[in-house]
Amino acid sequence: MSMVLYHYWRSSASWRVRWALEIKKVPHKKIHIDLLSAAEKEQEYLKKNPSAYVPCLEVDGRYLAESVAILEWLEEAYPSNALLPGDSFQRAKIRQFAETINAGIQPLHNLDVLKQLSDDSEKQKQWAQKWISRGLGVCEELLKELPENDFIFGTNPTLADLCLIPQCYSAIRFGVDLNEYFRCKKIYEHALSTEECASSLPEKFKP
Amino acid sequence: MSMVLYHYWRSSASWRVRWALEIKKVPHKKIHIDLLSAAEKEQEYLKKNPSAYVPCLEVDGRYLAESVAILEWLEEAYPSNALLPGDSFQRAKIRQFAETINAGIQPLHNLDVLKQLSDDSEKQKQWAQKWISRGLGVCEELLKELPENDFIFGTNPTLADLCLIPQCYSAIRFGVDLNEYFRCKKIYEHALSTEECASSLPEKFKP
Repeated sequence: MSMVLYHYWRSSASWRVRWALEIKKVPHKKIHIDLLSAAEKEQEYLKKNPSAYVPCLEVDGRYLAESVAILEWLEEAYPSNALLPGDSFQRAKIRQFAETINAGIQPLHNLDVLKQLSDDSEKQKQWAQKWISRGLGVCEELLKELPENDFIFGTNPTLADLCLIPQCYSAIRFGVDLNEYFRCKKIYEHALSTEECASSLPEKFKP
Repeated sequence: MSMVLYHYWRSSASWRVRWALEIKKVPHKKIHIDLLSAAEKEQEYLKKNPSAYVPCLEVDGRYLAESVAILEWLEEAYPSNALLPGDSFQRAKIRQFAETINAGIQPLHNLDVLKQLSDDSEKQKQWAQKWISRGLGVCEELLKELPENDFIFGTNPTLADLCLIPQCYSAIRFGVDLNEYFRCKKIYEHALSTEECASSLPEKFKP
């Protein structure tokens, strides 16, 4: 299969997919889409992904957007190093954790939403902090139901970690104190020490 | 299996799950959670779902939240009347469509977000309209890639329709003109004419 990932260095949803491609060792090309340049967005990229968001994965000339849909597809196409291990109910709990971030936090602080909210960067920051804090608080509660481990659901990263780690990174960027989310912070620090996660870090792709 | 759905009549995410339970003919009880009454939220329900959102599904005493995670679990536990039919890439495109709504529209106009945004109901409405219009515009573009049919991906509803129909209902509620989203509107009207969808309508569960 020929694969191209369209991504933006600081987009947390892009990072999820970069990390998954490392975990599953899938050969691919990367193309950086500059979300800050409206001109580029309006042209070629819209034909690939009408939402204009990143990431988008090109697979043999077909396009797939929305990071969770891409991750579910990667899991079906490349089952090794499973992102959704365990029985059906555990898989569901992994998805619940992932959606707590994918639908519950990230959409509320994406670039478009912050721009629409206000031109005042302080107001943008307070808004982002409010929703990140609420969401990470929920993650911390969900973690209390699980035994302590390197990652959320065991010794290997799952779909839930793929969402949590980039969200923790965004939390720090928006000035949220991660120390209030002890279990999340521990998993975040462990994840960054692993090769697959470290090689998908935003800084590695800053243009 | 013993199953209880915790839902709120006008929550679009609750409607997705009510409809799926009808499609899959899964016996269950329903318990209405009044999202407008803070007292109830703070008490028993938080133990079931720390996010305090609806829906939440109780399965043999265990709790599962986030509508898409619940729908994926129902699909694995009750494969008949598939919500994710087709090959792996079509399943991915169904999930992309669903996430365009689940992560791209609904979170931006949920009750908590509108309350945080402003006390002015006109401002709340404009904000909701902006994101619903953007998102339904994307849905309309995604539909152009597909042949016209009763539902988005054929003659039966999938995970994508389960997200689209309640979103169209919310669009009307917030004063968005559905005529601008011709294909979405046609599918919406067809869906409402089906027994499973009609019997899961918000009005049927208004306390």
